[in-house]
Amino acid sequence: MANQIFFGTFVHTPALDTIEYLHDTIVAVEATGVILTIEELPPIGRHNPAAWIRTTLIPSLGWAADTKITATRPGQFFFPGFIDTHLHASQYPNVGIFGKSTLLDWLNKYTFPLEASLCDLAKARRVYGRCIRKTLSHGTTTAAYYATVDVPATNLLADLCLQAGQRALVGRVCMDQHAFSPDYYRDETPEEAETATRACMDHIAHIDPNHTLLRPVLTPRFAPSCTGDLLGRLGRLHKEGNWPIQTHISENRNEIALVKDLFKDIVPPSAGEEDGLPSYAGVYDHFGLLTPQTILAHGVHLTEAEASLIRDRGSKVSHCPCSNSAITSGAARVRWLLDRGIEVGLGTDMSGGYSPSILEAARLASLVSRHVAMGGDDAAKLSVEEVLFLGTVGGAHVVGMGDRLGMFRPGFLWDAQLIGLGMVDANGNTDVTSGFADETTGTEDDPTLGVEDGNVDVFGWETWEDRIAKWLFNGDDRNTKKVWVNGRLVHDRAAIAARQRAAAKAVPENAISA
Amino acid sequence: MANQIFFGTFVHTPALDTIEYLHDTIVAVEATGVILTIEELPPIGRHNPAAWIRTTLIPSLGWAADTKITATRPGQFFFPGFIDTHLHASQYPNVGIFGKSTLLDWLNKYTFPLEASLCDLAKARRVYGRCIRKTLSHGTTTAAYYATVDVPATNLLADLCLQAGQRALVGRVCMDQHAFSPDYYRDETPEEAETATRACMDHIAHIDPNHTLLRPVLTPRFAPSCTGDLLGRLGRLHKEGNWPIQTHISENRNEIALVKDLFKDIVPPSAGEEDGLPSYAGVYDHFGLLTPQTILAHGVHLTEAEASLIRDRGSKVSHCPCSNSAITSGAARVRWLLDRGIEVGLGTDMSGGYSPSILEAARLASLVSRHVAMGGDDAAKLSVEEVLFLGTVGGAHVVGMGDRLGMFRPGFLWDAQLIGLGMVDANGNTDVTSGFADETTGTEDDPTLGVEDGNVDVFGWETWEDRIAKWLFNGDDRNTKKVWVNGRLVHDRAAIAARQRAAAKAVPENAISA
Repeated sequence: MANQIFFGTFVHTPALDTIEYLHDTIVAVEATGVILTIEELPPIGRHNPAAWIRTTLIPSLGWAADTKITATRPGQFFFPGFIDTHLHASQYPNVGIFGKSTLLDWLNKYTFPLEASLCDLAKARRVYGRCIRKTLSHGTTTAAYYATVDVPATNLLADLCLQAGQRALVGRVCMDQHAFSPDYYRDETPEEAETATRACMDHIAHIDPNHTLLRPVLTPRFAPSCTGDLLGRLGRLHKEGNWPIQTHISENRNEIALVKDLFKDIVPPSAGEEDGLPSYAGVYDHFGLLTPQTILAHGVHLTEAEASLIRDRGSKVSHCPCSNSAITSGAARVRWLLDRGIEVGLGTDMSGGYSPSILEAARLASLVSRHVAMGGDDAAKLSVEEVLFLGTVGGAHVVGMGDRLGMFRPGFLWDAQLIGLGMVDANGNTDVTSGFADETTGTEDDPTLGVEDGNVDVFGWETWEDRIAKWLFNGDDRNTKKVWVNGRLVHDRAAIAARQRAAAKAVPENAISA
Repeated sequence: MANQIFFGTFVHTPALDTIEYLHDTIVAVEATGVILTIEELPPIGRHNPAAWIRTTLIPSLGWAADTKITATRPGQFFFPGFIDTHLHASQYPNVGIFGKSTLLDWLNKYTFPLEASLCDLAKARRVYGRCIRKTLSHGTTTAAYYATVDVPATNLLADLCLQAGQRALVGRVCMDQHAFSPDYYRDETPEEAETATRACMDHIAHIDPNHTLLRPVLTPRFAPSCTGDLLGRLGRLHKEGNWPIQTHISENRNEIALVKDLFKDIVPPSAGEEDGLPSYAGVYDHFGLLTPQTILAHGVHLTEAEASLIRDRGSKVSHCPCSNSAITSGAARVRWLLDRGIEVGLGTDMSGGYSPSILEAARLASLVSRHVAMGGDDAAKLSVEEVLFLGTVGGAHVVGMGDRLGMFRPGFLWDAQLIGLGMVDANGNTDVTSGFADETTGTEDDPTLGVEDGNVDVFGWETWEDRIAKWLFNGDDRNTKKVWVNGRLVHDRAAIAARQRAAAKAVPENAISA
């Protein structure tokens, strides 16, 4: 890794209701991946930015003369990498396959059988490899993954994340509650679950000792699939190293009833709950699992008392609108959570959610907030900048890296994406120059320029606000031209397309030919 | 145009709850675009289908020896073209731009200014050209378009549809109600609106005399923007040629109140309405606009009495879930409409809806039906086959072509799309052979094969039902490899990509180079 310069337009959401457009801006990134400075190009450099950067800026930094410069073309912009705060890498092959199921039957019918099958490491490699590549291509620079119960397969997921360069929290799934976990897929005892969890933590400590990209995350699947003994062990394990925790909460009404039933004789009644039973949040809190390092997925049906408890403990919520709509869990009240002081990020929750994209999660967060607003609370609506904030800065706070990720700021890490939108020409075609380029393409432009146009059409009269709205609502992985994590280029559409074209030449003749 | 043969896998939804998978099937399409026969390849032909088709089938039909054969590769399938029963071509540049607005302020803030600006024909050409190309690329073979008030621009839309080969209903927008239509954009009198409408009808009769692709559609924008005089004229004009009608109904609660207020002294109270006022449907019925040829967009808040009236009149509903969620109109009860015997299709409603894709409309219809179900009516949920039915067969009925479009059947028209999904290989890459091919590529495969993989990943163990679900939930225009209307190939991703690559070589050097 070497020092790098990024130049052009940068867009980010430094606060929930704020979106910033930084034009003619230079971001200097150190070889460690840390942003050293962000500054506007001075007027004297405007007529030839690259020359000014080379002859003035780079020498002043004491950096090598051949320091790489990556620039946005007109209309392109750099955006912080997306943070997916909740997804099951092991369920990736099932995206879109859920029929009319809801949570508990969905788990038994679709999910447990697939997860169990991933103890086959060749299958796990195929599934995890594709999941990582797919989410990277959608601009996900950090992912909070659930793997499976299986230790070798979970370790493989960690290996593959490191290899691909995706920042990740990797969690081995703990589930020892025989009443709900199937015979063919569970931890037989709390001891076994703890031992297996420690084995995965040790593996990550071994392959990424400084936790540059990877952190282990304690992963009790959800209260219905865990005994109190196991939850207590994980709560104590958390304290050993302030380890992150991830689990599910209050996704579905039947699930909530099941939790109350399973824990009513184990956990005392929670304060503020009218039914005199422990609340879902109360169960986690009882076992020391509601911490500032805790990611709670869903939180659709939380009570006021639970929201207060979660806020007091500093735990975070991962909002998964795609999943909540698809498997009919409910419409989470994000404004309500934010108003109560709870930090919220976005999760794809594959495969409860069908989409691998946090951009689509942001889009659906916008729609779901409007469905909440249809109930009468107009303030529930989330704006473009708010859902993009949730997908970046919000997510960074949820995964415990709000001081290093989610926006462009000195001292933060260069986890970023280069976004390009299609430009419509006078005849209604997209402009072939609307691809991307950087200085490394040298004197001859990349031949893949303009091969794809994507689904975002810019006519030219749009404001920057309009362009960002168009990207939010119609953008996809075609608009994510390049992705960097920790300063390293980890996804490059042009390079992939070139490799695919080269490989395609070897394809056999059309089978139908007579 | 010549006769053609299509061979391989065909998928369609002949009934609301039925999806059919026809494998090893041959569809013979006459030069007129009409399907002559659909038959299964006999066992004797299985070892070399193309040879059997050439040596046995084609001679038996008396067709030319060089009749073109287009075949699916393994995993690919033909699917009926999508029918977009409601969209505003003139609003295409505004997709995704709606902020937190709802219908009435959205019209004034975003929509009327853009529509008015399209009297500039160069701008209209750019916008309409792109809209047609974009919807075709998403598999929309028939579109029910709203243009603008302007006659030349509306005629241009018709010209461009004919040229691109998209089947279309083209409607000049009528709006003469000074109380709601802005000064800068309206018909000054009912007479002018009628005259202008007739001018557009004449133009279509001139350019497509047999209505092979184009039909005019009477388009009162919606009741709040029309006088009773104008609505009455359009009702009488309908009778002259049983012309199709399209308008909006019961999209938003404020809109409904406005209709009642504007027409309470003009139209008698509607039977069955508790408020003693005319209902929204009652207003249209009063002026002879509720007919079997009428497309009513939205219908979110219809009353029981209105549903009965609409069913009795045989009018259809265009369900626009993307729009209804985006501009917070409400969650339409599709099951409720279907249970009442009303025929329903899908509409993108660009730019109230942000997506140009009926596949995405089907996906969102699925999600919205689950939001309706969250209210307690579990039967509201729509299945994969049901939403695909709405996007094809349902839409065909809505646009009055249920006897010619929407499924594969002898006597129906070949309006179809070739769908290809990505195949994941052992290393988690997509297989470069998962592109498409047809016999016309000859002995050397198309070099564009495999350049793109799209967002649908098939691992190989999925059933056909699973693959269709994956396509519904993650598919996009990349999966729509080719599109035909009336037998004519009107969209071909490979050809477009090849042209774009050729053009890209002329792109000037990267501007940032020092």
